[in-house]
Parts: sequence; C-alpha cells; structure tokens
Amino acid sequence: MITLLAGGTGAAKLVDGLIQETDPADLTLVCNTGDDVQLFGLHISPDVDTNLYTLAGIIDWEKGWGISGDSFFCMDSLGKLGYEIWFRLGDRDLATHLSRSLELRGGRTLSETIESLCRALGLKTRLLPMSNDPVETRVVTAGGDRHFQEFFVKGAWQEEVCSVYFKGAEAAQPAPGVIAAILEAQAVILCPSNPVTSLGPILAVPGIRKALSDTQAPVLAVSAIVGGQPVSGPAHKLMAARGWEVSALGVARALKDVADFLVIDSIDRDQASAISALGLEVLVTETVMRNRDDRRRLARGILENLGVERQQ
Amino acid sequence: MITLLAGGTGAAKLVDGLIQETDPADLTLVCNTGDDVQLFGLHISPDVDTNLYTLAGIIDWEKGWGISGDSFFCMDSLGKLGYEIWFRLGDRDLATHLSRSLELRGGRTLSETIESLCRALGLKTRLLPMSNDPVETRVVTAGGDRHFQEFFVKGAWQEEVCSVYFKGAEAAQPAPGVIAAILEAQAVILCPSNPVTSLGPILAVPGIRKALSDTQAPVLAVSAIVGGQPVSGPAHKLMAARGWEVSALGVARALKDVADFLVIDSIDRDQASAISALGLEVLVTETVMRNRDDRRRLARGILENLGVERQQ
Repeated sequence: MITLLAGGTGAAKLVDGLIQETDPADLTLVCNTGDDVQLFGLHISPDVDTNLYTLAGIIDWEKGWGISGDSFFCMDSLGKLGYEIWFRLGDRDLATHLSRSLELRGGRTLSETIESLCRALGLKTRLLPMSNDPVETRVVTAGGDRHFQEFFVKGAWQEEVCSVYFKGAEAAQPAPGVIAAILEAQAVILCPSNPVTSLGPILAVPGIRKALSDTQAPVLAVSAIVGGQPVSGPAHKLMAARGWEVSALGVARALKDVADFLVIDSIDRDQASAISALGLEVLVTETVMRNRDDRRRLARGILENLGVERQQ
Repeated sequence: MITLLAGGTGAAKLVDGLIQETDPADLTLVCNTGDDVQLFGLHISPDVDTNLYTLAGIIDWEKGWGISGDSFFCMDSLGKLGYEIWFRLGDRDLATHLSRSLELRGGRTLSETIESLCRALGLKTRLLPMSNDPVETRVVTAGGDRHFQEFFVKGAWQEEVCSVYFKGAEAAQPAPGVIAAILEAQAVILCPSNPVTSLGPILAVPGIRKALSDTQAPVLAVSAIVGGQPVSGPAHKLMAARGWEVSALGVARALKDVADFLVIDSIDRDQASAISALGLEVLVTETVMRNRDDRRRLARGILENLGVERQQ
C-alpha cells in the first residue's frame, strides 16, 4: 500500500505513472482541498477532480485539468447571463460538481461524495480529501487578500505575492482514513506538487505532520522545482514569498522535517550534497514528465527505490 | 397592455405570434409554475423558460422546449455517474437553472430570479410566475401519485390518469403584479394551453379567478383542443380524468366562468352554437400554428378581435 499526498497537475502525472506500474487498488491519494471553491452554487474540488479524472483515464493532459474533449456551452451561457466565468467548468465536468454539491447539501461529507464519484467511475484507488472541514488557501498580494483561485486562475498568477495562509486549517480535522493511510502505508510519496499551496495545506492540517514523523514507512518527496523553476504554475512566486529559495535545495529545506528521500532532476545534481547535508537521502533522475512514458519511468524509478515490487 | 396566462409550448407559439404583431413591452405573461421541479439540486421552471427562450428568440421549436441547437454533454455525464436523466437539461439551458437556483438560495424570490433572467436576455416583456409559493401539480395514476413531470416526461404520459390536484395551491399567493396585470390589462388572453395542468394551476391560485371576473378587460381563451384532440401533449387524458369532454365545447365548459371569448378552430365550427349557448362569444379561425406565419396570423386575428391597434 502506497499513500500519496497530492496536489493537482504535478501529482496527477505521477499518479498516471504509478497506475502503469502498480495495482491502482494499492494506492491511496490524500488530496489538497485548500483550493476548493464555491462557484455558481457548486462546490468545486479542483485537485480532487484532477486526480479523479486521471485515474478514470479522462483527464485533459493538454490543459492539465478537466475532462478531455469537454465543451464549455454552459459556461458561455452563464457569461451571456452576466456571470463572471474566469473559472471555466466544462459541460461534462459540471456533472461532477452537480453530483458533489447535491450530495453535500444532502448532508454527506466531502469524503463520501468523493467515494461515490470513485465508485461511479469504477476506480479502484482510494481517494481521500485531506479534510472534510473547510480549509481555504488565501494569497495576499499587493492588490488584496484573495482566494487562491482568484490569484491563480482569475489573475493568471501575475500578481506579486506577499504571503500565503490557510484559513481554517488550525480547526480542521484530517478526513477519516488519512492518518491511518499514512501510518499503515508501505511507502508515502509527496507528489511533485507546489510545496506552498498544494502540499502546504495538507501539511497544515493538524495531525498530518505528526503522522508523517510517526510512520514506519519511508517518506519520499519529488521536487516540483527543476533547474530553479517550477515545472508548471507559480511555485516560484509562492516559495519566494515564504522566503524559500526557488531550487531543489529550497524544496529540500521546506520538506526536510517530513520527508526521508528527495527525488531531484539530473539538472540539479550539483545540489545533491547540500540536500544530503540536510539529512535527506537524494535520488537523481529525470523528473520532467512530458508524456505517458516519462510518467511511467519516473514512477518505476521511485517504486524501485522504495523497494516496492512491480505488479503485472 | 395585454396580459397572458401561459403554459409552455402552446402558449409560446401564441407569444411568438404576438411579438410579431405588437410591442413585446406591452405584454405581461403570467406563467404556470405548477410543473416546476427540483432536479440535481436545481430549480427548474419549464413553462417560464419555454416562454423566456421564445421571447429571446432561442427556443427549440422542434422539441417545443429548451434552447435551439443545445447539447446534452452534462446530462450524459450525469447518466454515467448513475443519475436518472429522464428530464433532459441542455448544456446552455443549465446556465438558466444554475442562475435561478443560485439566486433562490441567496434568498431572492422566483419573481426576482425571472426578472433578472429577462434583464440579462434583454427582454422587454414582463414575465411573472403565477406565484412565488410552491404549487405542485400532482397526477394520480393507477401506478401512484406522481409529480406532473414524472407522469409527463418520465412516463411519456402513457399511464391512465385517475385525477389531478395542485398541492399547495390553497395556501399560495399570486406573485407580485399578477392581480394588477389582470385588473389593469386592456385584454387578457388564456393561451392555447392544456386547461387542466397548464391553465389549471394558475386558476387554482387564490385571487386569480376573482381578478378575471373583476377585470374590465375582455378575457379571451384559445382552445387547445382541435378536432377532438390536443394539438400536442396529454390534454385529452387529463380532461377525461376531470370528466370534461375532449372537445372545443369541453374547453368552453371548463373556462366559461373566467372567459368572455373562445377562439376555436374551423374544424370545430359545428360546436360554435353550443359554445355560444354557454354565454361565450365564439371566434372561428385557423388555430393550429405550424410555423411562424401561422403564429402571426392567429395573433393578428386575436388582436383585431380584441380591438388592439397594430404596432409597427
């Protein structure tokens, strides 16, 4: 059993590699819900859905989110009705949000709604939210204190970032199964996700850091920073705002308290000894996943390192 | 100012004729909301929307409901998630339901949500629900006591009808503006809608029958029964269940207390004298509206009869 702490796009790529190399039923994903957002009366869980669609084989790899080949007729019509449509929900994707919102209003927990979506899509992997309590990633820019999606999607992460915080995190409980999934795992993987706003909210839920310390399983992180830049997205701005160096070494410093291993890209091999000096075991390999084969190769390398047997 | 009591498809055809012959700003529609239904957490107002889309020029005339050229990708995806999808909501149409539901949850009345949709679509016609209170048309069949849409859409109106009732009607108030629109109109038109489940719920809202009696305006009804059959839909089954003859004369008997004039089709001219004997003035003309010109011609005939001047 392998437990993954997962954000969106970067995590989904590794997940797609892992399901090529191991039984999807042996994976448990703990997903970031700090960037969940309420739009048009619907509860949207972007990171959960990116992983859900990846596991179902319907993710739009080009965009990195949503369902492949989806249309946007409902969104365009909402635009004509005068609504802001900077957060684009595809017509097929809307079914997921309608279903989740309907069930949440009916009194079910976020965990239960995700479980029911997984069942409907025939998934074998267990997908958990980090928490069933609301945690909201807020980004403070010169322009104001914003929901993460306002900074990320509406503002196309152009604004300078002053700080980031996770509203509600202190009072949040890990979702049922999260702590056990970490404690009882054979290995834990921190996906190549933005360490500030993807892994950050998960690690901010009380009890999760402790479980990562307490688990007997090796905890392996994959650096989302390659050659001093994020593979995608605004991790550099967010790390800089935290005062973290935008480098594999910066990721190592951010995660050294929770991880035992750090996978870094070959391009960053010169940072390996500095990372080792922090007490992390370093794996150097090709980490940029441009296609399905890249994803499979990285997953294989990680599994071999963790001593996980290959499934047929 | 002309006030129309309107169901769905039949009403929409006459409305389309009227807006070709008179200023849309001079029309007020009072729409049936007895067949409103909650689906996927959304509030659907089928008759309101059919008229809304007709006035906006985007109605799908072939289906008689929804938006012309709409797609159904969200519905198909909900089907794949295991939801019943007998009530098909188009992707563009969904925007209307999302907007209305969002506003209703925000505490606005149904009237207000319709007003905001009309404004967004640039409509000049005033569109009112019969009531802002819930009234639910229930159809009792041998199989059970069902929401109108379960009988009409899910069951494709195949079941034998035992009876019909309007749950909540006694306690409902007419929506703001409805009574005044009837009392202050130059003419009132009861659209060629099913007299049981389209006009019936409107007439069941306390105060509306009285306003039709009290108004100084002529009240003209158009028979939805032509040649002993409904132009579309299950009016014959519903009228029979009420013990009403399925004929223009049957419509006359059903509406004689509220109407002064009845427009019947040429094919039913032999019933004119029996209808006159009920105290209704009869207009005989072609009432079946197969295309835009038919709709305009019937509207013109009605306006001439009511003494309403033609607008350019």
